[in-house]
Amino acid sequence: MIIVMEPTASEDQIQKVAKKLESLDFKIVFNRGEVMTVLAAIGDKRLVDPASLASMEGVREVKLIQEPFKLSGRESKAEDTVIDLGNGTKIGGKEPSVVIAGPCSVERNFEGLLKVAQAAKEAGAKVLRGGAFKPRTSPYDFQGMEEEGLKYLAKARQKTGLLIATEVMDTPEIELVAGYADILQVGARNMQNYKLLKALGKVKKPVILKRGPSASIREFLLASEYIIYAGNPNVILCERGVKGFDSHYTRNILDIASIAVIKKYSHLPVIVDPSHATGRRYLIEPMSKASMAAGAHGLMIEVHHDPENASSDGAQSLTVDQFKELMIDLNRLSKLLGEGSRKN
Amino acid sequence: MIIVMEPTASEDQIQKVAKKLESLDFKIVFNRGEVMTVLAAIGDKRLVDPASLASMEGVREVKLIQEPFKLSGRESKAEDTVIDLGNGTKIGGKEPSVVIAGPCSVERNFEGLLKVAQAAKEAGAKVLRGGAFKPRTSPYDFQGMEEEGLKYLAKARQKTGLLIATEVMDTPEIELVAGYADILQVGARNMQNYKLLKALGKVKKPVILKRGPSASIREFLLASEYIIYAGNPNVILCERGVKGFDSHYTRNILDIASIAVIKKYSHLPVIVDPSHATGRRYLIEPMSKASMAAGAHGLMIEVHHDPENASSDGAQSLTVDQFKELMIDLNRLSKLLGEGSRKN
Amino acid sequence: MIIVMEPTASEDQIQKVAKKLESLDFKIVFNRGEVMTVLAAIGDKRLVDPASLASMEGVREVKLIQEPFKLSGRESKAEDTVIDLGNGTKIGGKEPSVVIAGPCSVERNFEGLLKVAQAAKEAGAKVLRGGAFKPRTSPYDFQGMEEEGLKYLAKARQKTGLLIATEVMDTPEIELVAGYADILQVGARNMQNYKLLKALGKVKKPVILKRGPSASIREFLLASEYIIYAGNPNVILCERGVKGFDSHYTRNILDIASIAVIKKYSHLPVIVDPSHATGRRYLIEPMSKASMAAGAHGLMIEVHHDPENASSDGAQSLTVDQFKELMIDLNRLSKLLGEGSRKN
Amino acid sequence: MIIVMEPTASEDQIQKVAKKLESLDFKIVFNRGEVMTVLAAIGDKRLVDPASLASMEGVREVKLIQEPFKLSGRESKAEDTVIDLGNGTKIGGKEPSVVIAGPCSVERNFEGLLKVAQAAKEAGAKVLRGGAFKPRTSPYDFQGMEEEGLKYLAKARQKTGLLIATEVMDTPEIELVAGYADILQVGARNMQNYKLLKALGKVKKPVILKRGPSASIREFLLASEYIIYAGNPNVILCERGVKGFDSHYTRNILDIASIAVIKKYSHLPVIVDPSHATGRRYLIEPMSKASMAAGAHGLMIEVHHDPENASSDGAQSLTVDQFKELMIDLNRLSKLLGEGSRKN
Repeated sequence: MIIVMEPTASEDQIQKVAKKLESLDFKIVFNRGEVMTVLAAIGDKRLVDPASLASMEGVREVKLIQEPFKLSGRESKAEDTVIDLGNGTKIGGKEPSVVIAGPCSVERNFEGLLKVAQAAKEAGAKVLRGGAFKPRTSPYDFQGMEEEGLKYLAKARQKTGLLIATEVMDTPEIELVAGYADILQVGARNMQNYKLLKALGKVKKPVILKRGPSASIREFLLASEYIIYAGNPNVILCERGVKGFDSHYTRNILDIASIAVIKKYSHLPVIVDPSHATGRRYLIEPMSKASMAAGAHGLMIEVHHDPENASSDGAQSLTVDQFKELMIDLNRLSKLLGEGSRKN
Repeated sequence: MIIVMEPTASEDQIQKVAKKLESLDFKIVFNRGEVMTVLAAIGDKRLVDPASLASMEGVREVKLIQEPFKLSGRESKAEDTVIDLGNGTKIGGKEPSVVIAGPCSVERNFEGLLKVAQAAKEAGAKVLRGGAFKPRTSPYDFQGMEEEGLKYLAKARQKTGLLIATEVMDTPEIELVAGYADILQVGARNMQNYKLLKALGKVKKPVILKRGPSASIREFLLASEYIIYAGNPNVILCERGVKGFDSHYTRNILDIASIAVIKKYSHLPVIVDPSHATGRRYLIEPMSKASMAAGAHGLMIEVHHDPENASSDGAQSLTVDQFKELMIDLNRLSKLLGEGSRKN
Repeated sequence: MIIVMEPTASEDQIQKVAKKLESLDFKIVFNRGEVMTVLAAIGDKRLVDPASLASMEGVREVKLIQEPFKLSGRESKAEDTVIDLGNGTKIGGKEPSVVIAGPCSVERNFEGLLKVAQAAKEAGAKVLRGGAFKPRTSPYDFQGMEEEGLKYLAKARQKTGLLIATEVMDTPEIELVAGYADILQVGARNMQNYKLLKALGKVKKPVILKRGPSASIREFLLASEYIIYAGNPNVILCERGVKGFDSHYTRNILDIASIAVIKKYSHLPVIVDPSHATGRRYLIEPMSKASMAAGAHGLMIEVHHDPENASSDGAQSLTVDQFKELMIDLNRLSKLLGEGSRKN
Repeated sequence: MIIVMEPTASEDQIQKVAKKLESLDFKIVFNRGEVMTVLAAIGDKRLVDPASLASMEGVREVKLIQEPFKLSGRESKAEDTVIDLGNGTKIGGKEPSVVIAGPCSVERNFEGLLKVAQAAKEAGAKVLRGGAFKPRTSPYDFQGMEEEGLKYLAKARQKTGLLIATEVMDTPEIELVAGYADILQVGARNMQNYKLLKALGKVKKPVILKRGPSASIREFLLASEYIIYAGNPNVILCERGVKGFDSHYTRNILDIASIAVIKKYSHLPVIVDPSHATGRRYLIEPMSKASMAAGAHGLMIEVHHDPENASSDGAQSLTVDQFKELMIDLNRLSKLLGEGSRKN
């Protein structure tokens, strides 16, 4: 930790900061410049709250040197985490990329869901997604089928052998959802719902954690840290776009570079949801390819049997045929990337 | 609702959209331009999901004309909402602005809390704030004293007569927190925790809803709509800064214009938290004054008996003396604004 | 154009707006809803300034239906623009993607520049880039070699046969720079330097226009419109990242989706500069691949013979060897994409 | 400067960085932590480009300790800069705040301009603004009256005694504009047009420098540094809103905290333009008051004799009567702030 003192800080103030740090077992190195003094404090950051140091008289700024995430960081675990999703499907490291497909919401039409599931299976997807509990911006929008939706998903699993991923929104629902799903999902708007994260640490099933719309990568990894620290190391990070200043043509900005950044700093698998990121059907294909080319461990794509009549997010859902066609391209791309860029 | 068709849309596609809208009881007006056709659909937006229209073939864009919030909007209720907080303190409309003060977290030092509470009371604050359940970015930071913290707050209320405001983070905790607090608070990171919002609609106590760090004003008002729609009209909106591209000098950008925007579109009271917005002690004074000058119904300010040893957010907390001095200035400003700009 | 009136607008105010539009040859369609009236105005948007309409009493909002760009838009020219850069190299449409490589700044070391140029040529790049006039955030940073730098570039062209691209910063310099360069470049910070754009409309050489760090796609295309409208249709758009809220791990957010958005709305070629976007060497490879997979017509990559001693941007420059390796991967990817996704 | 090495950096790499710094006359202090090594380099930052250090093998990050601006910073000049605008009007420090008023563009209606100027003068404004050279997002929008507009402004000055402020867009125009204006203005989109900034350093007249829509405060101060370093210390900084993610209700986010931040770090006067920031007439009053309450040295407000027929920005212009009313409130507020908060 680096403590930059104000140019006007008195010697007393400098010594007070130094003493506080020493009392917390930090080793202090003084760097006295012509304009200001800088203290380097070497020790375990977890013992002190940087904000409380920053509040001391005469302190201009406290800069962290070490990343504040531990369990999700490469520094504590250098090798990639590979998560067994079930049915022999693994995600992370050098495993082939995993495609998760399905409608935004599970709707009161099991045949439609099954049609999507079967097509997804045939095209090579490994996981069926679908929301039973739906976080919606407006209380007047469709809020999901709840447990009945979970039953539909389970039935689709039974008929296709696909794994099931679905969202959980609130701690009291975890048990119910985990009773049906193979993979639990935390929505972007709940990324910093810490009670939910802690409770998911007690579950043994893999958790897909979506990046909050304005979460920095550090905040994103710290959110995953909550789950791991509470006991569940099976976290899959999902980039789904961040808020930008131009929402006229795309809903969010898909931060594709975050894939490579996360792979450098963390050992966790990282996937991309191009559907929610862009909100536009014609962008799914190029963004899926780009994500894969950038090294994503998987993709989560919305597919609907009849997008024009979807209860939610129709505008960004692929039809079954569009999805099949996309998978052909993605499989070829995946093969090339697997051969060529072994270092990626 | 306005549906803009693609320049390449066929007559068939245009008719299909028109028929769908007519089947939902919309009245359609065709505007056929040289380049593209635009349909104006007049009727109740709640009957249709704009995204599902946007997903139809040949549709370029769907534009909403009416704001999607109803109960929180001026269109359904023109006069200002004034909320009775208890003890004769009211907030909203032309009521004098209400100052909420106290430490970020309740800490294991009741004397310190009491010192802040007494000073706040003397200086003119009406509500004591303090977190017992703390949402923290890192799992390694102080997570709050939980129920014991609530007890401290209740005891400070008893001794000072101040009202108590504190945060609730998870649905199963609502009953416990509401048992102690006069005002419940939803943190910025939970602004779109819809289960929590719905559950707070069942509570009768006032709710302070903090704006999410990347929530648009529309999303903010739709979040308040969840609480009101579920039965609780006593919502106080709290601007606390939004994520910006420059976090070197301030934590967030305090969006002071949002006060005036919200007052135009909504009848709900709106307050400002300059402490979390800026994260810097020296900015509390100018931002408090600016918020008041812009028409805020209240302020929420962090005050600590010993900021250098605070468990959280010390860098942005005022000392008791700084707070007293600020209140003198704010009271004079408030008086001037109350006299002069009756229209504001 | 759609004019949304306030719910409180009087019939007089509505008629005044309608009359103003009629006087400008717009055809008006009235849509009178229960809450508010909406006017659809059909005609040539260029005849009226939407902001002046928006200023009329009783008007809530003016929404544009047609995009304001004309010459750069697909609506006026459906087929892709292919630009002849010289030496048989073309960019745009289905042409193979063009790689532009070279150091950020031309430095006082011709042998170094030549080394980069020769390696770039061998690896398949077609254009050598290098700044002679450098826009730098601080006046104390290296400001470029000016004309002498242009001479170095010309000499490197002579020895390698590569084309030369370099930046022009100010109208009085255009003639000088155009006397040496094959392609002129407008930096991101000058994207809305309209005098410069207009003056470049008088030049016949291709212009690379970089997206401003907070330019919306609409503002970006309107900037290109200035050049085309002034007489030069040879504009190449360059995505180089936009300002985001998290600059800890990457300098900007590379908006890869903008490639596909621009290709939908405009016929102009679009390339990507992953070096300035990310500011980190290890991100150049994944972002180059992602850009190509998303359909970019070309890439602009910083390569330096000795990045550790570069006068500017060393941290994001590839070494000559890294560049060669990357080009092998990109060539294989380009081949696959060319075969497979003919529709992209 | 702090150089953070990668956890994987070799001793060789560490020594190489240290040697490079020593060769540049930096004094090095080694901080060897358990995970990584950190070097503190004490010396004159201007001697080294941080980016070139960052490009060295094994370096994770380079952190600046001292702000990179010198001449515009408080560290080099502690007391406030007060600029004499002419006619006995001063701006900065404890001087009374200066209001600059007038239409966005000078239009072909001298009587209208004069009406605004006279009303502005009566209400207490000291400077008349008006654009003769207009930067417009679209080439099809009104581009200004050019020299004829300057003549109108000069004539209005003659008749009212107001000072004249107007924008200059391009280096070859400086002489012409400076021949008429008392104060030169650099628009937000030209904030990093460095050739323009350097050329304005050669002029002796005061320069209003508007903050770019995505300029960080550091970039803003570095832009002012260009002008001062080139010889002109009379720079007035103007906050005018930054790009945010929500442009539905306001054009930009007015970053009112920047006023107080700038006053802490720089000695230059800082004013606010609430008109361009918000783009909405009803927001001018609350934002003007808020800016003043936050400590702004002045305001720049758009006033038009007939906003509904303005050539540009009518929607955000006040009428003459609205401006007069606002000035009454601002004068009372200014008086209170002057008395009360002597420390501000």
